[in-house]
Amino acid sequence: MRILILGAAGMVGRKLTERLVTDGQLNGRAITHMILHDVAEPIAPQAPFEVTALTSDFSRPGEADRLVASRPDAIFHLAAIVSGEAEADLEKGYRINLDGTRFLFDAVRRVGDGYRPRLVFTSSIAVFGAPFPEAIDDAFFLTPLTSYGTQKAIGELLLADYTRRGFFDGVGIRLPTICVRPGKPNKAASGFFSSIIREPLNGQEAVLPVPEDVRHAHASPRSAVGFLMHAATIDTETIGPRRNLTMPSVSVTVAEQIDALRRIAGDKVASRIRREPDPDIMRMVAGWPPRFDASRAESLGFKAEESFDEIVRLHIEDELGGRIAG
Amino acid sequence: MRILILGAAGMVGRKLTERLVTDGQLNGRAITHMILHDVAEPIAPQAPFEVTALTSDFSRPGEADRLVASRPDAIFHLAAIVSGEAEADLEKGYRINLDGTRFLFDAVRRVGDGYRPRLVFTSSIAVFGAPFPEAIDDAFFLTPLTSYGTQKAIGELLLADYTRRGFFDGVGIRLPTICVRPGKPNKAASGFFSSIIREPLNGQEAVLPVPEDVRHAHASPRSAVGFLMHAATIDTETIGPRRNLTMPSVSVTVAEQIDALRRIAGDKVASRIRREPDPDIMRMVAGWPPRFDASRAESLGFKAEESFDEIVRLHIEDELGGRIAG
Repeated sequence: MRILILGAAGMVGRKLTERLVTDGQLNGRAITHMILHDVAEPIAPQAPFEVTALTSDFSRPGEADRLVASRPDAIFHLAAIVSGEAEADLEKGYRINLDGTRFLFDAVRRVGDGYRPRLVFTSSIAVFGAPFPEAIDDAFFLTPLTSYGTQKAIGELLLADYTRRGFFDGVGIRLPTICVRPGKPNKAASGFFSSIIREPLNGQEAVLPVPEDVRHAHASPRSAVGFLMHAATIDTETIGPRRNLTMPSVSVTVAEQIDALRRIAGDKVASRIRREPDPDIMRMVAGWPPRFDASRAESLGFKAEESFDEIVRLHIEDELGGRIAG
Repeated sequence: MRILILGAAGMVGRKLTERLVTDGQLNGRAITHMILHDVAEPIAPQAPFEVTALTSDFSRPGEADRLVASRPDAIFHLAAIVSGEAEADLEKGYRINLDGTRFLFDAVRRVGDGYRPRLVFTSSIAVFGAPFPEAIDDAFFLTPLTSYGTQKAIGELLLADYTRRGFFDGVGIRLPTICVRPGKPNKAASGFFSSIIREPLNGQEAVLPVPEDVRHAHASPRSAVGFLMHAATIDTETIGPRRNLTMPSVSVTVAEQIDALRRIAGDKVASRIRREPDPDIMRMVAGWPPRFDASRAESLGFKAEESFDEIVRLHIEDELGGRIAG
């Protein structure tokens, strides 16, 4: 079993790598080789199998062909320019998120000779744009209101068409906002959903740029890895031709996020949030979906947390060794 | 008022050109110049304004920039590889229908300097794929089951994003199957819907490759031109950010098409249809939508025929000078 991860240096990519190293196998087959790719150098972990770390811009013609030349059995495509940056830099967003994805898909197609890997693509709830129904189900249409969401929606369409054509066996998973993201903020406009939990638990102040009644859908980094592993191993016959699935999530308001933080870490921690409305972020967030009916993914065995309290506790357990800065 | 038509040599492009020449104006402004572009040489009509006919492959880098250099006020983008050919030739379909469209949109974007033309894009009901609800409304999601439908859906997403960004003022219209197409069959898998009417009226035999209970949605060539003209002149403030609209149509079974032909032209004409099932076409057609709720477009003033009888009569009037081969 050979595995290729694009976007391996990102937060989810690193956690997926750790999980695969720990498991040593995927779908009952021992992992023999793993290629970790990113535009920033991925850290190759100690592993009971060969690990190759590669650094390049996969949106340069020919790069993707090089990555799939060894015919990996499973490909995780996590590489993306995040929402805020894709909005600020139109050409870069389209080059990486659209051209890069297409070059990868075409590289797999061109291998030919019966090669048909499992390909897991991380899409996003940003493929949906307001106005929304009460809960967005799997038959709700794609109306992205950002360039990032547009690029992800295009990736979904290409994934479905190339899967239908038999070039690979694709599964697209629409990740909700991953919360609590560990480490430093990235350029995603959704970053504050994590920082208002992460920074206070670290004894630092966090800025909240939107009103507390903003509702949003979340899943933990641990769930994100679980989604990816399940997408890589599920019997795709059970999915059918509609290969892009909205992942389960916990829908809460910002006020409910803060309540959970207060319940678990106390008033002092929860008081480290400073309200500083940001019209740009408020406008983007207003176009994001607040709640999903992910019954299709749930019936296919994808699982997220049950409550935001659980999400906060997982962060303290996985990232802080159980310790809170009181 | 300068106008650019891409795909001007096609059936709808020629009829749109005729209409613009007859009208001499668009939205109350006199037409001063029209550029007709296609990969096959468009015929430049006699007109009371300057007409330039250009032939090139607009999916070649730089071509689209040349086409928009004169800053046309209205752009009609009708150029496409049709469904059957896009399915048979994956690379050609993606090159013209995806890359070509994107080159055009980017060329308009790069003009800059306040340039923001009206851009009318012909999408297709092929953006929808089975299984369907009873009638497909404007909030039904995009699930194309052909590469052509995938490419059109991607064009819709790009149109909406580039409109949102202010690069042009886009309107995407999802054309139903245009029936009765005059002239020779094109490579579209949907061609038989027209030929079973057109050929018998011309005294020739037509082949029906699907069962008579197949239901499909149609509008006449005259309606198609009407949709384009309305899309080019409508106040887009009334459309809002969801710029892609399903056009009105007449939903009938093949049996009802044949009944209409028999009512209007008699038994002898209707008997010129030979049943010859084609599994490839049956499979493609099974993935196409049978009926639409186009209330959004209707409320915005788009109009189609009321019955299939009307569609047959329009064909006899517009294409046959009122004469039927009895």
